[in-house]
Amino acid sequence: MIALSDIQDARRRIAGIVRETPVDQSESLSGRVGVPVFLKHEQRQITGAFKLRGAANAVERLSAAERARGVAAASTGNHGRALAYAARRTGARAIIAMSSLVPMNKVKAISALGAEARIVGRSQDDAQREVDRMVAEEGIVSVPPFDHADVIAGQGTIGLEILEQAPEVQTVLVPLSGGGLIAGIACAIKALRPTVRILGISMERGAAMAASLQAGRPVEVEELPTLADSLGGGVGHANRYTFSMVRDLVDDVILVSEAEIAAGMRHAYLEEREVVEGAGAVGIAALVAGRIRPSGPVLALVSGRNIDMDLHRRVIAGADGLEDAA
Amino acid sequence: MIALSDIQDARRRIAGIVRETPVDQSESLSGRVGVPVFLKHEQRQITGAFKLRGAANAVERLSAAERARGVAAASTGNHGRALAYAARRTGARAIIAMSSLVPMNKVKAISALGAEARIVGRSQDDAQREVDRMVAEEGIVSVPPFDHADVIAGQGTIGLEILEQAPEVQTVLVPLSGGGLIAGIACAIKALRPTVRILGISMERGAAMAASLQAGRPVEVEELPTLADSLGGGVGHANRYTFSMVRDLVDDVILVSEAEIAAGMRHAYLEEREVVEGAGAVGIAALVAGRIRPSGPVLALVSGRNIDMDLHRRVIAGADGLEDAA
Repeated sequence: MIALSDIQDARRRIAGIVRETPVDQSESLSGRVGVPVFLKHEQRQITGAFKLRGAANAVERLSAAERARGVAAASTGNHGRALAYAARRTGARAIIAMSSLVPMNKVKAISALGAEARIVGRSQDDAQREVDRMVAEEGIVSVPPFDHADVIAGQGTIGLEILEQAPEVQTVLVPLSGGGLIAGIACAIKALRPTVRILGISMERGAAMAASLQAGRPVEVEELPTLADSLGGGVGHANRYTFSMVRDLVDDVILVSEAEIAAGMRHAYLEEREVVEGAGAVGIAALVAGRIRPSGPVLALVSGRNIDMDLHRRVIAGADGLEDAA
Repeated sequence: MIALSDIQDARRRIAGIVRETPVDQSESLSGRVGVPVFLKHEQRQITGAFKLRGAANAVERLSAAERARGVAAASTGNHGRALAYAARRTGARAIIAMSSLVPMNKVKAISALGAEARIVGRSQDDAQREVDRMVAEEGIVSVPPFDHADVIAGQGTIGLEILEQAPEVQTVLVPLSGGGLIAGIACAIKALRPTVRILGISMERGAAMAASLQAGRPVEVEELPTLADSLGGGVGHANRYTFSMVRDLVDDVILVSEAEIAAGMRHAYLEEREVVEGAGAVGIAALVAGRIRPSGPVLALVSGRNIDMDLHRRVIAGADGLEDAA
């Protein structure tokens, strides 16, 4: 479905738009785990998360006519920001649909990136319906956050960078939500170095992909408040790509608790001096909690720093979850 | 004394050792100041501060015999860490002299980078005397933290990067202590684009270079506790390079208060999501405090994240200085 060459093409396509983010060895995690631990700092990507890679690849592949009609998504988070940025960068129109319940600071952040923030209805489903309507009636191109070949190929460019930047790595830890990120990375790494283990890390509270893998098909799970809110949301019952890719390419899935995520965020701040949102800290969390005992060099992909800073301050002061921070 | 070509040579020499650190436009500072504000994130440099550039350039220029005898410095801070890293990277021996009053975590950090930590006497002066003795008796090469042509040329590579990464910039804000950083940057930028203004930013509490400029010669000032402790220390009465370069090339010096530095660190954390030590946040501090009112695009060099994290936590919780944080 998605080939290594698609990811290599994506890398060339987005080279002038995204940053090759650095990989550092973490002294403190290496000491703690007993093997070399590397961190890839995708939270330092432009727009603050890996999402720009996939969005940029999708936008770059559009025809001039498609760019003029515009791209759309129903995401106010990292994907929405990334799509807005990528569209402005290439002169494409972008419409980000969001419900009237979305806080004004998120609406403003999208507008500041040059996209049209379209306020529709009172739920994420209402916003998605508006995207579907624009696609059907206005020829707008939908760029969904994960289940899309160009988006997956864009995220996969991280896998190519990892193999170059830390060639000794035997295990790679990747935050897992809808699966676009890990599907792309696993596709690249398994094609080039099949012995490298790829582990997906999700939160215990509402891990849709983990439940789907267990059921053998995409299933819905109850969405629960979590520090790793960017990992929330379903896999989609009509999932085309990511469910089967994760099932076939990912070696294991590990779930971390809220207290473990909080400890991962605190470690990122205190030892790595990095501000990381919960979803981006789950790999560090799994290592700090001893949930993974790798026998050789391991790399954790860190991503995302779009976090409410009041919440971050409460977590680094010791809060072990959302209730504890309230 | 130091020419543009020395800095261009340094850039080629250290290209495989140091990172070209990113420049980002700060939305929140741009809105606050009313002109585009860019930040160059030298705190993301390897070893956590700009110091690696100068140390690497000095070590790379040594002969094989000099590398075997070794390099030495009396610095337990960012320069000492940088020199230890650069020496290990090139197979040179490194000896970092420090007094017995230096905390064990700093000693360990130097040892972890592969350098010999030599504990001598009870003061920084005692440690420096040991370096002088090694130079005289053992042929060890001293690599001082700022007043050294190769060190200045190495720091100057930042100036070349700034002109490429943010060519529209009209004013550059640089933390100012002994002057090695700003001398190198000003040398590069004034040679290539003389209309760009270079401003040095120091703390009010113990700004040795500012006092020396006022006196017309290097003078000593009382060292006082400050959030910007990496900017402490004198210029050296036998100063060879940096005093005259700063006097001739730097347009103005601005002093910021402890409360302003604390506000700069809080801004870095809350708005830029960056952990920055006080010395590295003085440019942001000057902008946040309205001490500079640039009429065109401005860039602040951010550098240094080697801070006690208990102190950082207290500052972001609201402490306005060391006493307030105690």
